[in-house]
Amino acid sequence: MRNLTLLTDFYELTMMYGYFLQGKTDEVATFDLFFRPFDESNFCIAAGLEQAIEYVENLHFSDDDIDYLRSTKAFNEDFLNFLKDFKFTGTIRAIPEGTVVFPYEPLMIMTAPICQAQLVEAALLNIINFQTLIATKARRVCHAATPASVLEFGLRRAQGPDAAIYGARAAVIGGCSSTSNVLCAQMFDMPPKGTHAHSWVMSFPTELDAFMAYADTYPDNCLLLVDTYDTLGSGVPNAIKVFDYLKAKGHKPIGIRLDSGDLAYLSKQARVMLDEAGHTDCKIFASSDIDEYVLESLKQQDAKIDIYGVGTKMITSNNTPSLGGVYKLCNISSNGVETPKMKISDNPIKMTNPGIKTVFRLFGRDTNKAIADVICLVGETIDDTKPLTITHPVERWKTKEVVNFYAKELYDTVMVDGKRTYKSKSVYQLQKDCQASLDGFWDEYKRLSNPHDYKVDLSDNLYALKQRLILNERKGKGNEVQKGSSRVRPKRS
Amino acid sequence: MRNLTLLTDFYELTMMYGYFLQGKTDEVATFDLFFRPFDESNFCIAAGLEQAIEYVENLHFSDDDIDYLRSTKAFNEDFLNFLKDFKFTGTIRAIPEGTVVFPYEPLMIMTAPICQAQLVEAALLNIINFQTLIATKARRVCHAATPASVLEFGLRRAQGPDAAIYGARAAVIGGCSSTSNVLCAQMFDMPPKGTHAHSWVMSFPTELDAFMAYADTYPDNCLLLVDTYDTLGSGVPNAIKVFDYLKAKGHKPIGIRLDSGDLAYLSKQARVMLDEAGHTDCKIFASSDIDEYVLESLKQQDAKIDIYGVGTKMITSNNTPSLGGVYKLCNISSNGVETPKMKISDNPIKMTNPGIKTVFRLFGRDTNKAIADVICLVGETIDDTKPLTITHPVERWKTKEVVNFYAKELYDTVMVDGKRTYKSKSVYQLQKDCQASLDGFWDEYKRLSNPHDYKVDLSDNLYALKQRLILNERKGKGNEVQKGSSRVRPKRS
Repeated sequence: MRNLTLLTDFYELTMMYGYFLQGKTDEVATFDLFFRPFDESNFCIAAGLEQAIEYVENLHFSDDDIDYLRSTKAFNEDFLNFLKDFKFTGTIRAIPEGTVVFPYEPLMIMTAPICQAQLVEAALLNIINFQTLIATKARRVCHAATPASVLEFGLRRAQGPDAAIYGARAAVIGGCSSTSNVLCAQMFDMPPKGTHAHSWVMSFPTELDAFMAYADTYPDNCLLLVDTYDTLGSGVPNAIKVFDYLKAKGHKPIGIRLDSGDLAYLSKQARVMLDEAGHTDCKIFASSDIDEYVLESLKQQDAKIDIYGVGTKMITSNNTPSLGGVYKLCNISSNGVETPKMKISDNPIKMTNPGIKTVFRLFGRDTNKAIADVICLVGETIDDTKPLTITHPVERWKTKEVVNFYAKELYDTVMVDGKRTYKSKSVYQLQKDCQASLDGFWDEYKRLSNPHDYKVDLSDNLYALKQRLILNERKGKGNEVQKGSSRVRPKRS
Repeated sequence: MRNLTLLTDFYELTMMYGYFLQGKTDEVATFDLFFRPFDESNFCIAAGLEQAIEYVENLHFSDDDIDYLRSTKAFNEDFLNFLKDFKFTGTIRAIPEGTVVFPYEPLMIMTAPICQAQLVEAALLNIINFQTLIATKARRVCHAATPASVLEFGLRRAQGPDAAIYGARAAVIGGCSSTSNVLCAQMFDMPPKGTHAHSWVMSFPTELDAFMAYADTYPDNCLLLVDTYDTLGSGVPNAIKVFDYLKAKGHKPIGIRLDSGDLAYLSKQARVMLDEAGHTDCKIFASSDIDEYVLESLKQQDAKIDIYGVGTKMITSNNTPSLGGVYKLCNISSNGVETPKMKISDNPIKMTNPGIKTVFRLFGRDTNKAIADVICLVGETIDDTKPLTITHPVERWKTKEVVNFYAKELYDTVMVDGKRTYKSKSVYQLQKDCQASLDGFWDEYKRLSNPHDYKVDLSDNLYALKQRLILNERKGKGNEVQKGSSRVRPKRS
């Protein structure tokens, strides 16, 4: 396994050094990893937890790392010795991969000695931001493609090898049936998919020669790319000749692939040509700059496409290529005193939620569909035997009474005192979990344009704590800030 | 080194298997890796060659890889045995990293037995597309920031670990002074940069406590983040108190960092406050959703910012997060017969240039500034002792006579018969090479909006070959295509 311990921003190390010199290494910090409202989608599909846990488990400074840090001249030997024995001893709660998640809901909640909790910020964000981004994009693409299925084809345009590998993993969690990326397929036990390229056709004297050679190579798995020269003029007619030949020999050809041109028109024409030649079972695959909007348009045009290969625009989340996940301090525990923390800002969107939290999702008993999420302080419970009033997180006059519901807490405890308690799941199991999570929402929340607004509210206790910290800050200003916000809270069990 | 041999699209392997069964493994193919016109920029900065060569040098199928491929049931044992001994034995010519490159100019030209040349397509594109994309974006960002310098801060929003590491490398080639990413800094011998986060400030009772603690940690390298609570109300005044304290003790504080709010306004106010307090040497750093357009606006507003930290929008190339590099067959050599190949399409932009090529850049003798590039067939020379007529690649009536010039061929031969002939350079040397390449262009080509159109023309020989292949195809259609395009060419030395 690669040692990614130094995959961190330098300031994490300079801060660790500062905490070390200040004698603060025993303070226990809790950080929330969450995202703010995201332009591309009203919700996200959580992904990347498996790799995040692997990264944390594997944290250690090698001798080379220590030598390198010494060479920066930013640290003393005591600190470098401290790093030699460094390992992660904290506790992590997280929302499982494949779950529908909303802005401000912590995807991961890290509780660890402050140096440990600080070090991991940048890499955790890197891992979770990207995979969540791509699982979310893939969910949209697969939603638009239904009932056609989607293959992930983005390797050559992904932002580096990891983006190709983990992006494809996330895309499958989000709904893709598989990937063309062989290394990803090997790592995550999926069947790699693909046929041949234009270069195959161009390397033979004629297109028909190329198709016949491919048919002889894969008589039972023959899928032909028909757009190298002239899709309807030569590609499809040549493919039909080859399919006739295969059928006569008792094989069942798979179909054709379109990779350029007007996919709606070409697919409809090709469908007619294949059907008239008796190849009604042959599928039509299509690729070429596809995203969820192109898919909606193709569906509207009644394109005859069975399977899509989606590359560039999904693997980069083309319209919004980053998820703005952040990692914010929400609590410090020192000598038995718990001090909830929050970032105060003039911009309400940048204010964070203080304290150690949890999230409940409320479902209708009759429908099994989600009604609202409630972000609470940990230890709060929800009594689902009686009506519950939920309240808008900012506009508190907006309330709603929820009845006949049950509440589900969203978190798993995935590490305890540095030991993994998380059990890995296969990518296809995570895909099923994702589908189950999506099935818990009405279609109105899942449509791609102007989805219905889903309620994510704050509990009264959390709201009151937040207001108290804000008011203290407004009174205290700058150099007095948060002096009054310390309070003793019962120790968490 | 990671084994990335299976970082390939499955169809590369199915095609290799087909070539193997067809007895074509001795055919030598040449592929061009190039990009088509790119929305974001009229030219790109070539990057990623070092990693591309490492990848090719390291190609081998491990026993695990072979077992995995056997498990797909797509290949026979003879082929799997062939893969066991597989290594790269080809020759690669490439445009060096840091060079200004234009659409259709091959960044890499691979000549190798067809199975080898085919296998590497997807990974080479992945590596070169991404690093070239980010070096290009960084060039634009640094251009807009001048005379301020730019630090790469994108780790947490990069598309996975590799994107963070190799994106930061490419950003430095494109002009950034360094990165916050410690692993990247370690790998490529750069000084990692950074100070402290909001969480540092929030972990102390007051902002002033936090600043004093940081000053005690780094008395000679004290850079304070001033926007946790109230930039001008508490952050800058507290920073000034700390700088006064440091100065009194004989230290020289570095400055402050702004990470939110109106950077133009805040930087001007902060500059006045620092100057009035006698801290005229203190620098102002700024970060927060910056790209080249924000930088142009800040410059216009006379913002007082010395150093920028640029993250998300540079490391993802936010507006255009992929470079559409492609890898196209341009020649097959079999039994001494050279057959130039091209992709024919109704869409001229998708037509490729046939044959094994090279590119000359013409510079004015008096100015040392580039006049035009000419894409030729390899073996063609340019006589710079007499006037040269260059011709538009499509609109052939557009010609221009070039006089008093010299011609420079753009390629290095980086591998010969599978042996590396390329000598690695440090990232900062590549940055200098990039600057030198940029210095060879007039400002009009380098401005960010509506740059002047740079001429990249085709030699008469290349143009004639291309026309001949197109005409043959128009005559032949589909199943006859390219039959007439074979021709015996003198063997390349």
